[in-house]
Amino acid sequence: MVASLDMAALSVERQATSALDQLTKQVSQNASSLDVMFVLVSGYLVFLMQAGFAMLTAGSVRSKNTKNVLLKNVLDACVGAIAYYLFGYAFAYGPVDNVFLGHSNWALSDDTQEFHIWFFQWTFAATAATIVSGSVAERTSFYAYLGYAFFLTGFVYPVVSHWVWGGGWLSTLFDVGAKDFAGDAVVHMVGGFAGLAGAIIVGPRLGRFDQDGRVVPMPGHSATLCTLGTFLLWFGWYGFNPGSTLGISFTAPDANLTATAARCAVTTTISGAAAGVTTLIVIKLRDHIFDLLACLNGILAGLVAITASCPWVEPYAAVVIGIVGALVYIGAAMLLLLLKIDDPLEAFPIHGAVGVWGAFAVGLFAREELLFISGYGNDNGWEGVFYGGGGRLLAANCVMIVVVAAWTLALIVPLFFALNLVGALRISPEMELIGNDVSKHGGAAYPDDVILTEEKQAGRAIDNLGVDNSLSDEQVAVVV
Amino acid sequence: MVASLDMAALSVERQATSALDQLTKQVSQNASSLDVMFVLVSGYLVFLMQAGFAMLTAGSVRSKNTKNVLLKNVLDACVGAIAYYLFGYAFAYGPVDNVFLGHSNWALSDDTQEFHIWFFQWTFAATAATIVSGSVAERTSFYAYLGYAFFLTGFVYPVVSHWVWGGGWLSTLFDVGAKDFAGDAVVHMVGGFAGLAGAIIVGPRLGRFDQDGRVVPMPGHSATLCTLGTFLLWFGWYGFNPGSTLGISFTAPDANLTATAARCAVTTTISGAAAGVTTLIVIKLRDHIFDLLACLNGILAGLVAITASCPWVEPYAAVVIGIVGALVYIGAAMLLLLLKIDDPLEAFPIHGAVGVWGAFAVGLFAREELLFISGYGNDNGWEGVFYGGGGRLLAANCVMIVVVAAWTLALIVPLFFALNLVGALRISPEMELIGNDVSKHGGAAYPDDVILTEEKQAGRAIDNLGVDNSLSDEQVAVVV
Amino acid sequence: MVASLDMAALSVERQATSALDQLTKQVSQNASSLDVMFVLVSGYLVFLMQAGFAMLTAGSVRSKNTKNVLLKNVLDACVGAIAYYLFGYAFAYGPVDNVFLGHSNWALSDDTQEFHIWFFQWTFAATAATIVSGSVAERTSFYAYLGYAFFLTGFVYPVVSHWVWGGGWLSTLFDVGAKDFAGDAVVHMVGGFAGLAGAIIVGPRLGRFDQDGRVVPMPGHSATLCTLGTFLLWFGWYGFNPGSTLGISFTAPDANLTATAARCAVTTTISGAAAGVTTLIVIKLRDHIFDLLACLNGILAGLVAITASCPWVEPYAAVVIGIVGALVYIGAAMLLLLLKIDDPLEAFPIHGAVGVWGAFAVGLFAREELLFISGYGNDNGWEGVFYGGGGRLLAANCVMIVVVAAWTLALIVPLFFALNLVGALRISPEMELIGNDVSKHGGAAYPDDVILTEEKQAGRAIDNLGVDNSLSDEQVAVVV
Repeated sequence: MVASLDMAALSVERQATSALDQLTKQVSQNASSLDVMFVLVSGYLVFLMQAGFAMLTAGSVRSKNTKNVLLKNVLDACVGAIAYYLFGYAFAYGPVDNVFLGHSNWALSDDTQEFHIWFFQWTFAATAATIVSGSVAERTSFYAYLGYAFFLTGFVYPVVSHWVWGGGWLSTLFDVGAKDFAGDAVVHMVGGFAGLAGAIIVGPRLGRFDQDGRVVPMPGHSATLCTLGTFLLWFGWYGFNPGSTLGISFTAPDANLTATAARCAVTTTISGAAAGVTTLIVIKLRDHIFDLLACLNGILAGLVAITASCPWVEPYAAVVIGIVGALVYIGAAMLLLLLKIDDPLEAFPIHGAVGVWGAFAVGLFAREELLFISGYGNDNGWEGVFYGGGGRLLAANCVMIVVVAAWTLALIVPLFFALNLVGALRISPEMELIGNDVSKHGGAAYPDDVILTEEKQAGRAIDNLGVDNSLSDEQVAVVV
Repeated sequence: MVASLDMAALSVERQATSALDQLTKQVSQNASSLDVMFVLVSGYLVFLMQAGFAMLTAGSVRSKNTKNVLLKNVLDACVGAIAYYLFGYAFAYGPVDNVFLGHSNWALSDDTQEFHIWFFQWTFAATAATIVSGSVAERTSFYAYLGYAFFLTGFVYPVVSHWVWGGGWLSTLFDVGAKDFAGDAVVHMVGGFAGLAGAIIVGPRLGRFDQDGRVVPMPGHSATLCTLGTFLLWFGWYGFNPGSTLGISFTAPDANLTATAARCAVTTTISGAAAGVTTLIVIKLRDHIFDLLACLNGILAGLVAITASCPWVEPYAAVVIGIVGALVYIGAAMLLLLLKIDDPLEAFPIHGAVGVWGAFAVGLFAREELLFISGYGNDNGWEGVFYGGGGRLLAANCVMIVVVAAWTLALIVPLFFALNLVGALRISPEMELIGNDVSKHGGAAYPDDVILTEEKQAGRAIDNLGVDNSLSDEQVAVVV
Repeated sequence: MVASLDMAALSVERQATSALDQLTKQVSQNASSLDVMFVLVSGYLVFLMQAGFAMLTAGSVRSKNTKNVLLKNVLDACVGAIAYYLFGYAFAYGPVDNVFLGHSNWALSDDTQEFHIWFFQWTFAATAATIVSGSVAERTSFYAYLGYAFFLTGFVYPVVSHWVWGGGWLSTLFDVGAKDFAGDAVVHMVGGFAGLAGAIIVGPRLGRFDQDGRVVPMPGHSATLCTLGTFLLWFGWYGFNPGSTLGISFTAPDANLTATAARCAVTTTISGAAAGVTTLIVIKLRDHIFDLLACLNGILAGLVAITASCPWVEPYAAVVIGIVGALVYIGAAMLLLLLKIDDPLEAFPIHGAVGVWGAFAVGLFAREELLFISGYGNDNGWEGVFYGGGGRLLAANCVMIVVVAAWTLALIVPLFFALNLVGALRISPEMELIGNDVSKHGGAAYPDDVILTEEKQAGRAIDNLGVDNSLSDEQVAVVV
């Protein structure tokens, strides 16, 4: 009888266990669906940063080079996708036990790949390449561009991301590991330093500095496009930073990616805003104008500044990180002009110099508790020096900063020099004067006025039907 | 033996309970992650409304003021973030037992804050400030702008949101509570009435009315930007309205935020569409043109009209609310011109007047069952008067309408008068004629043509290489 | 005693069961919330494709027709919403047992409708209408446009979607069912073939072909707008393709919509990128320029090409599908010009011709295992012919291709002919020369220059305050 009762109890237990097991699996599947959806949606937003960069870059150049820079932005996404599909993802995250680079899962050939992760990482790779386009805009050969874009997204960037995010040697450095949440060193420094190398080796645009070495203003052709681009970038940054949690569920034992993502959204906002206001004030004091374009770049500097540390800092720290980021940007931009380096988009000051600051700030402001919540915790108590965590985290990040800059320059500088030697780096002065669009891309980006002239000649008789916005005859005479 | 069997049963129970407790916690965490993700993504969309407003405003002004209005839109987000971080959120949602205003959690200093809610509410605060920029565009001092933007996002708007959404006195009025789901009174009326006050006190733009008081058309410089802006705003409204559920999970006992959010998306769509078509037809009948810009504003009016009631009405009611919203917008816009009030973006007609209609419509069309599903139900059976719910809900919303208008005007009118008295409200006529951009922001938004002239002079010899889109010599002579 | 022990065991079982039932319900609700959120967010993205089309179309026409095409794009969303609300959704998904068309749930009158599905499907219907606008741009009557847009979104498209997606006869054809995941036949072919019919019947724009039948270039007025539009479309495609899972949860017994959605994002990316690069290279070889606009259209062709098969193919197949898609686009575009058919947006080559290829490719590359994972599996082992699945799936899709083309043309051709007969199809040559905007929409899209002249005359005295970007006096003389 006892046995029979035991059997009954056991049967209850088994049924409950079986139903529980089933339910436990479903709960886990829900969490998995949550994580994948969050990564996908975040990746969509990061992808839209390509549109943001395209508008920002187009607005920042003269209209005669608009199609050229737009095409480069478009190809950053396309060539980047092909390169990252074929090689890049394998170098970065190929599941092999090698601290220097991965080397499996070429062309997504493994069966067990997680496609949402590839998608998200591709959008990051494309971002790194895009940053460079800005620095070398308006005078660089299209072939040179294609070369470095493929090289950067296919190899230079993937290797760095393997070191820091893919289980490589920097991720365990000094026991604590270099920490760069959404990629100040991994993405922004790679793009910014490659751009700096390019800007120096290609040389300044014709007329950027006069005979006495003074800077000649060379504003882009549309502040509206710059503003639209900046807003789209800011929007995309909410994919870039909160999305770098690579999930939104609670995960055992300590991590709460929900809270982590929400914190990232807040610190990203506050840092960008503080940096924008800071830049507006500083430039107003220096130049006596409320400078829209500087304010936009200041916002971008603030967004870059918080990228490495967004889940690990308090909101007040985000204010400080943003303000310092703005000052670093302004200082670096002034320094470049002093050195007669022409970076039309100020891509090095914003992404390179502020990227250094952002990676450095992790070692100052990161809090232990928040590292645990984000899944980056360890039991050694290391945190930012301002919270008494000692300098080990800061030291690891300093090594990362130096190594990433060195790696990027060591690979990109020879490439640019080689291209220069064979005459494939810079377009001819004639092309540069007349613009890339007419000389290489089949005509102006805004050809309407030119085209209208034929109709004008055909339709002279109907001119009195109303106004139109075509050219004057005198202007036509010059254009045709 | 019995005892031992009881123990066995108990042990089974305990194990099952323990596993169940663990699983219950995970299920609850999944629901929490769902809610936070939905709020974050919705907030991202609302943030993009800043880009929408920026493009709409830029397109609606003359090109000489483009950078000025763009910078104001950019700063609405930045200054708004700082003000809302430091003070606004504490006034609105500081967890204290005060029906007039909150006063804790300054600068997000509490430990238990929910960051995703701050993020979402900030995007709303920035929206309120942005509406005002439209009404006073093209002639208002930049310092005046900075003052009211900080004041509005830091105090005026937060207090109203505390009254209606933060547990304040309007939320319990007449037992039923004033109901404004996504903020027709709380956001749009605050922005719209502040803008009206500004437009009246600042006065019309130079040349807006001729000597006989007739309206002089003053179209903006780009219908394309207006269209882009409207689409971005419509897109963002899907964050604004469905996102105001502040969650997407099912919550006990009756609420089904999933169904609520989906309904909001549908009614928002239908109301906006119906209002757009209505406006197109009415203006065609009145002015004999298919007016793109009126249609765009009509769509915005329809989106505003449904904002207060989106989760509580049937789709057919959304059609009615949209159509009436369009008529209210058209009527209010005509009235403003009759009264010689110059509101370049028609921000008061769209956000203020239609905001009143939208808040009023809740009292007509809200259904009890849908209030329960959205979590706003009560056991008193009060619903819209068209469903026999009696007038109490309508009365509560009418009080809200009057109170919000009065509060906003009571705070903003003195501010604008004070700024006017000290000469800090309006720019000089010279500045207004030449435009804000050249006089205050370092040059035109589209400087390309001007810049090209130097190259033209330098590069005359290569003119025969192809066409370019630069200025004629005659035009150059005038410009330089 | 035994009885009492049995009771105890039973009680434990009941409690556990009750708690389990409750929890099971919550887990299922979480999955439901997940699915609805994914569909809503995906729908938001598809909606933004309207902005993408608007910018692409605006940039692709001459500035004198900008407001016209923008208004049409705006109305595609508005008129589409009304038509789809009143009739379209009932024809497509009205829950009746009829394989030809649904006919219930008019105006969302059923109580149990799933609003998020309506929302998502509306965005698709609006897309189909928008494609047509491109083909007939710059010379089609506004009334004709309103007629076909209402007809297409209210009837033509819904019936097709019923056949393939709503349980209609094509969905069970040859046992296997025609398979078109996100709508190459259902959406893109309907839009593309309707556009082709329109382009032929309306005839080419004035001056598109010269007396000797040679093509006269007629570039649009802004390559920047085209690029922005393409990026927005690409972004929206991540709603279109992955969102067509209509959910993101794991569903019994085999389906894993999480993995399906992630795969869609990857294959969509790779196909678009491969097609963009392919087009760039082919056009470079043919025309010796790096053609931005062709590259953009190539990307769109790649995105269309993968739309039908995105969840069922391997990444390498996405490369192939994209490359072939690009070639189909280029070939079809050349063929249209040979035939003197003027399709300003190349909407037929991109959406119609490549839509055929995309639907066909399903029968070649679809894998059985992936069909199961996406919930489209069956136990008959039919898959793409390249995997040994036999030709039945390919045959079903070929029938779908023929039927959709025939249905669309059979309904749209008579409509366009009827409109033509009563003189309501095409605008007058005078209107076409001067442009739609001035003749029908109250003025130019970019009126700034015109307006500035008055101020210029008033403000001549302050010209020396700085540069401005207004017109020269000579130009003014012509314009006024």
